[in-house]
Amino acid sequence: MGEKTKGMGLLPVLQVTEEGRSDVEDVVAEEFPLTIILNNQELVTLLCTPVNLEYLVIGFLFSEGLLESRQDLKSIAVDKEKGVARVETIKKPPEEALPKRVEAQIKILPDEVFALMEEFQHRSQIFRTTGGVHAAALCNRRDILVFAEDIGRHNAIDKILGECILNDIPTDNRIIITSGRTSSEILLKADRRNIPVIVSISAPTDLAVRLADDLGITLIGFARGKRMNVYSHSWRIKS
Amino acid sequence: MGEKTKGMGLLPVLQVTEEGRSDVEDVVAEEFPLTIILNNQELVTLLCTPVNLEYLVIGFLFSEGLLESRQDLKSIAVDKEKGVARVETIKKPPEEALPKRVEAQIKILPDEVFALMEEFQHRSQIFRTTGGVHAAALCNRRDILVFAEDIGRHNAIDKILGECILNDIPTDNRIIITSGRTSSEILLKADRRNIPVIVSISAPTDLAVRLADDLGITLIGFARGKRMNVYSHSWRIKS
Repeated sequence: MGEKTKGMGLLPVLQVTEEGRSDVEDVVAEEFPLTIILNNQELVTLLCTPVNLEYLVIGFLFSEGLLESRQDLKSIAVDKEKGVARVETIKKPPEEALPKRVEAQIKILPDEVFALMEEFQHRSQIFRTTGGVHAAALCNRRDILVFAEDIGRHNAIDKILGECILNDIPTDNRIIITSGRTSSEILLKADRRNIPVIVSISAPTDLAVRLADDLGITLIGFARGKRMNVYSHSWRIKS
Repeated sequence: MGEKTKGMGLLPVLQVTEEGRSDVEDVVAEEFPLTIILNNQELVTLLCTPVNLEYLVIGFLFSEGLLESRQDLKSIAVDKEKGVARVETIKKPPEEALPKRVEAQIKILPDEVFALMEEFQHRSQIFRTTGGVHAAALCNRRDILVFAEDIGRHNAIDKILGECILNDIPTDNRIIITSGRTSSEILLKADRRNIPVIVSISAPTDLAVRLADDLGITLIGFARGKRMNVYSHSWRIKS
C-alpha cells in the first residue's frame, strides 16, 4: 500500500440498509502482529497499526520499565515483512519503578484545551476514514507537537512516548491528548515521562482518577466542543 | 457500594464550560485489578469492572486455552477484598489450539439484527451512566440471552463465554454482539465457542475480516440504527 493509505486497507463489504443491499468497497484499519525480540529473547507480540513501528517498540519498552533512555538503546531493527522487531539494549539491573509525583507548574486556559482538542480531532486521518483507531498527541499550550494513531489506545500513547525518547523531545510541562478512555495504565505511562496533564475525549475510570490525584497529574475527561470535566489537580486550569 | 451502583463510583469533578465552572459529583466506571492464580501459580492481573468476576476468570482461562470445559474446573474462589481469584483445574497436556471452521447454518434477517442492536443499546446501564465501559451479549435471533459489561472489551466477551461455560449455555448457532471494535483476538474467542455470527457497533480491523473469512464466521460492523456492513460470509444474512 502507498503512503496515502498507510494503516488502512480496502475490502469488499455488503452494505445492508432498510432500502436494500449493495456490494461496495470499504476502508478498514490494518491490524498487524509485531513480535518484539529484546536481547535475543522473544518478549511479546503486539497487535498494532503498522505505522511508526520503531516509536511503538521504544515507547512500549519504556512504559514496561525495560528501557530507561535512548542512551541504553544499542540497536533496533524492524523487519516489516516478518513482523519482527529486534532490540538490543545495555542491560541494567531491573529498576525500582516507583511512580513519582509530577510537580510541573504549567497552567492552561480552558480555551487552550478546547482549541487543542479541535486540532486533535482534525488530525485523525485513519479514524475519519475507518472509524477503527485511536489517536494520541503530545502538545504544549498552543500546538500539537507529536501525533500518532493506532488500533490500540495504549499503542498510540507508546508511539508518542517512543518518538519523544528517540528524538529527544522534552515532555515536562506538556500535555497528552488521547481519544481513548483513561485507565490506570495510561496514567502510569504519562507519569514515567513526568507529563502533568492528560486530556481525553472519553471517560476515565475511578482508579485512574485516584492515581492522578496521588501522582499530581491533572486528568481531564469528556473534552468535547467547549466542555470538559476536570477530575484532579484542577489548579492547573486557569479561570 | 450497593447493588444499584455496581461497577460505578461517585467522584468530585470540576465541570468547565464556556459559561464557567462548577463543582459537581460525577459517576465514574470502577477499575479493579484482579490477579488470577491458576494451580498455585500467579498467571496475570486483569484490570476489569468488578461484576461477575467468576465468569470473567473462567472465560479468560478458556480464551487463553488454559481451560477446556467445566468438567476440567476443580474449584474457583474469588476474594474481592484482596483482588485475587484462585482457580484449580485438572491439568492436561497443553492443547493444540488450531482454530476450526464454524459450519453453523443459522440465517438471520437484517431486521432481526437491527432489533437485537436496539435492545443491546438499551441494556447497557453502566455505559449510559459513565461512558466508560464496553458491553457484550450472546443472542439467538430474537433475544439477548447473556449480557455483560466491562471496562475492557475483551473482558466483556470473556464474561459472556465464562457464563456460558459455567451455566452450560449452548453457543452454537448463536450470535455475539459487542460494543467494541473487532480485532483478531475477538474472532479467535468466538471461534473457540463455535459462534457463527459477530455483530459490532464499531469497526473491524483488516486482520479480523480475513480471519472471519477463513474461519467461516459472519462478521458485521457499524450496526447502528437500520444499517450495517457485512464483511464476511454474508450468505447468513437473508434477503
